[in-house]
Amino acid sequence: MNNNNWWRWGKPKEAQDLQDYPKLITYLEKLWNTKLKNDFQIPSTFSIPSALFSNENFTSTFPKLELKQFSNLNKDRLKYAIARSYHDIIKVFKNSIHNYPDFILFPESEEDVAYILKVCNEQDIKLITYSGGSNVTGATDRDEKYNKVAVLNITRMKSLIAIDEESMTATFQAGIYGPELEKILNKKAYTLGHFPQSFEFSTLGGWIATRSAGQESGLYGKIEDMVLGLKVICPNGKIEHQDFPRHASGIDFHSLFIGSEGTLGVITSAKMKIAKLPTSYQWVVSVFKNFQSGTKAIKEMVQGGIHASIVRLSDSDETKMLSLMSNSKKTYIKALLEKMVKYNLKKNGYTKPCILMMRFAIKHESDKGQIATSKSICKKNGGKMMPANVSSTWEEKRFALPYLRDTMVEHRILIDTFETITYWKNLDNLYQGVRKALTEKSDYFDKNGLLFCHISHAYETGASLYFTLIAQQEKNQEIEQWQRNKNIVSNAITKLGGAISHHHGVGADHQQWYLQKLSPNAQSLLLAIKKELDPKNILNPGKLFDGTRK
Amino acid sequence: MNNNNWWRWGKPKEAQDLQDYPKLITYLEKLWNTKLKNDFQIPSTFSIPSALFSNENFTSTFPKLELKQFSNLNKDRLKYAIARSYHDIIKVFKNSIHNYPDFILFPESEEDVAYILKVCNEQDIKLITYSGGSNVTGATDRDEKYNKVAVLNITRMKSLIAIDEESMTATFQAGIYGPELEKILNKKAYTLGHFPQSFEFSTLGGWIATRSAGQESGLYGKIEDMVLGLKVICPNGKIEHQDFPRHASGIDFHSLFIGSEGTLGVITSAKMKIAKLPTSYQWVVSVFKNFQSGTKAIKEMVQGGIHASIVRLSDSDETKMLSLMSNSKKTYIKALLEKMVKYNLKKNGYTKPCILMMRFAIKHESDKGQIATSKSICKKNGGKMMPANVSSTWEEKRFALPYLRDTMVEHRILIDTFETITYWKNLDNLYQGVRKALTEKSDYFDKNGLLFCHISHAYETGASLYFTLIAQQEKNQEIEQWQRNKNIVSNAITKLGGAISHHHGVGADHQQWYLQKLSPNAQSLLLAIKKELDPKNILNPGKLFDGTRK
Repeated sequence: MNNNNWWRWGKPKEAQDLQDYPKLITYLEKLWNTKLKNDFQIPSTFSIPSALFSNENFTSTFPKLELKQFSNLNKDRLKYAIARSYHDIIKVFKNSIHNYPDFILFPESEEDVAYILKVCNEQDIKLITYSGGSNVTGATDRDEKYNKVAVLNITRMKSLIAIDEESMTATFQAGIYGPELEKILNKKAYTLGHFPQSFEFSTLGGWIATRSAGQESGLYGKIEDMVLGLKVICPNGKIEHQDFPRHASGIDFHSLFIGSEGTLGVITSAKMKIAKLPTSYQWVVSVFKNFQSGTKAIKEMVQGGIHASIVRLSDSDETKMLSLMSNSKKTYIKALLEKMVKYNLKKNGYTKPCILMMRFAIKHESDKGQIATSKSICKKNGGKMMPANVSSTWEEKRFALPYLRDTMVEHRILIDTFETITYWKNLDNLYQGVRKALTEKSDYFDKNGLLFCHISHAYETGASLYFTLIAQQEKNQEIEQWQRNKNIVSNAITKLGGAISHHHGVGADHQQWYLQKLSPNAQSLLLAIKKELDPKNILNPGKLFDGTRK
Repeated sequence: MNNNNWWRWGKPKEAQDLQDYPKLITYLEKLWNTKLKNDFQIPSTFSIPSALFSNENFTSTFPKLELKQFSNLNKDRLKYAIARSYHDIIKVFKNSIHNYPDFILFPESEEDVAYILKVCNEQDIKLITYSGGSNVTGATDRDEKYNKVAVLNITRMKSLIAIDEESMTATFQAGIYGPELEKILNKKAYTLGHFPQSFEFSTLGGWIATRSAGQESGLYGKIEDMVLGLKVICPNGKIEHQDFPRHASGIDFHSLFIGSEGTLGVITSAKMKIAKLPTSYQWVVSVFKNFQSGTKAIKEMVQGGIHASIVRLSDSDETKMLSLMSNSKKTYIKALLEKMVKYNLKKNGYTKPCILMMRFAIKHESDKGQIATSKSICKKNGGKMMPANVSSTWEEKRFALPYLRDTMVEHRILIDTFETITYWKNLDNLYQGVRKALTEKSDYFDKNGLLFCHISHAYETGASLYFTLIAQQEKNQEIEQWQRNKNIVSNAITKLGGAISHHHGVGADHQQWYLQKLSPNAQSLLLAIKKELDPKNILNPGKLFDGTRK
């Protein structure tokens, strides 16, 4: 590989350096009693097994496709072997990738997809549908037990198919990336309103297949609230069902494919509900004495019909981390620390402040009433109002945090995230329980590992919890260390009634916990659906549920 | 039968008499040049085939059940042979019921349901799950081609299982009727917010199985927006999946059973999202010069985030009908005609006025901003504001219209309804198209049949259309007349891109149009799911899709 940056998140020029965060560095070095050095490097070469599938094989197997729709180059097989979890990146650094795909196909139309599925079904070639490749769940890993595995990269299918401004719907091919999709809609003063952190490097089809939820779900809803209709190609043919704004005409097929993670069919296009762009935004920022009172304020707002588009409550440990990052050139949150000092927060009993940032989208004058109500709910729950501009840098950098992860790994820092959801009644139990499990079942905190958490999606009935773990890497045990923490936290989440994922998905990494929550009959039903749509189990085999059983 | 009123809607003391609507009578008699007489009567006896399933059969087949959980009485077999469509009622009057169920079972627990399904599966007894029996789609009809058909009445299963006020969820057994459910929730200042016109005589399980939407869907959502979790018993066992407020943990099983109309499993309980009762309500009433400008106002509101809980726009023919009903003792809308005169509507160009009634639920002071915005949107679209109390009687009588249907049938009047949904862009086309189809394909209007329409459910992307047909019955051709109109309107709706149902469901009556919209692969998928969950096709056979194929 000539390019040493192929494994990094996003655009090379946006790459970050931990050294630009001096306060954070100082804090971590003192905590861990070490000097953080940028000395972890990716291998100079990877031992990629030679390509089993030659250009000639391609031409004879897929005579209707062109050579430009194929790659068996090692650089591509390496690139598509990973996605973007900490686990993926560590596998790169440790030269532990074992599951290279054999080749990559680039369909350019729905017809291409149908043709590829037909051929692959006949010849038992497994297909991993791949678009942005930004997943953090092993969702696009090759399962090693299968032969002849190809990646189906759908990102050449990225057209707007139709827009109906009167009905506020737009139909796109599934391989379109977030920014391109928004650019098309923004030109006409519309938005889809779906902004996951991966927004810049993930696609419409990926969002649907993984049951994504974006940062502005409070206003625009989650992906399942936006899908009106899907075109799905399965190995045994096309699944179609006329779409309506709503109906009482039997079972809703589309919902079967939302969250199906490439195991049942290939989503080739989607008709989506779109929204008008707001005329302006307004931030409301408040600091709470503890996570519980901030949580209570959010609950009161969403249960009272107050819907900020963005809601983000950080616990005190995350707020502290944001403070440590706030005096950098590449700041994530504007001089939070100074504001906290200025506002005498400590003196006033806010010794472990938790910051709540909310963004309201203004469409009508009457929306401003919501903002006034939100402020009074914050105050009622002990929230101290802060200047709204504290949030302005977070807004600019809202998609940028994954860049920081890369430089942390190079500094031999473990950084992993876990996200879950539960009902309000169980939220504090789950929040406390994860920390408790790490305390009881590991030496994570003895070694001064950091754990922090935020709520970023709130509903009438419950909220998500997004945990971040930051610790020193255990040299030569990096993968084992990751798996150990993964198991402890995921077991705790599952035992304490949380979903194994609120918005990342299941993939390979969460499969065992996902299956624990399904009764045997539910698993049989899944397999029956799989068998009907993909009888030879060619689609993302081994993922989500194990399609080989029965 | 001793009781001649068993076929009527609702409570006997609420029964209506058309004679209480003198203006309406006068209008119809003049229009049809006839004297309307209450001379259509149900037969004095019905020729019900003798019960094949005796008490002894019951005891030996279901040894674990008690005799009070069984009926093979003719009066019950007659009662459960019909639901509440015009077609059902006409079948009673014409003595044309051919499909009496053999017996009725009354499970009292989830265990009873599981036991009954197990036994029926072994002995090939078909089961029609029945709760309120208020459907208007033939959804609980016995399909004549099957032997040994029992009705499974689940209305003894009507308990509150759990309520979690902090998370705003409540879990009920599925057989609970609307008023009982609301009474339990209202006591704690909550509501489910689901108020279909059948509210008083339909159940939670029925709402879910038929994909119901209530009159206040604008605020509380449709049934699918409220379901968090379901318990479903299938012939091959229980389907369970842990519920969460939202998740990205694979395929959402619950959604498969929403709209499954008793064909896949028996819903025994449901965990529902509940809402706080509003502190007050406010009506906004406006009159438009035509249906199109009223439609435009509604579209602008819902697309601009203005969400009335009730939205009801009547076209000019329906508004006229409401006026004719408005001076009765049992008025449906308060002296609308007088108000129209008083406001000089005709002089000001409102020669064919269309009334829009909207009810806003107030929870916060800030909600009042929505009302001001809604009024300005009405005015902008030519709406003339009317006193809000015009709506107050409609509100009282919101569940009462089906009573009027019964007395109309006795007066030899055909009254049938059709409801559909489409995208905004296609709404006027569909609205006009139904009238056009009746004009071109029948003598409906030549015989002075009436057709009117309202919108009662509006979404960002589209709206429902609810058509009512009122005509003179064709003596001795009542059923054929019904079927002829049904075919013309349903064909038109389907051809013009409307759903065959927005909220009534598919049942037996809409099956042919439902299947037209499914590709062969989609139908195969449905059958595969059916085969997995109900391999012997014992659940509501012949309904929704035809489980006998393949």
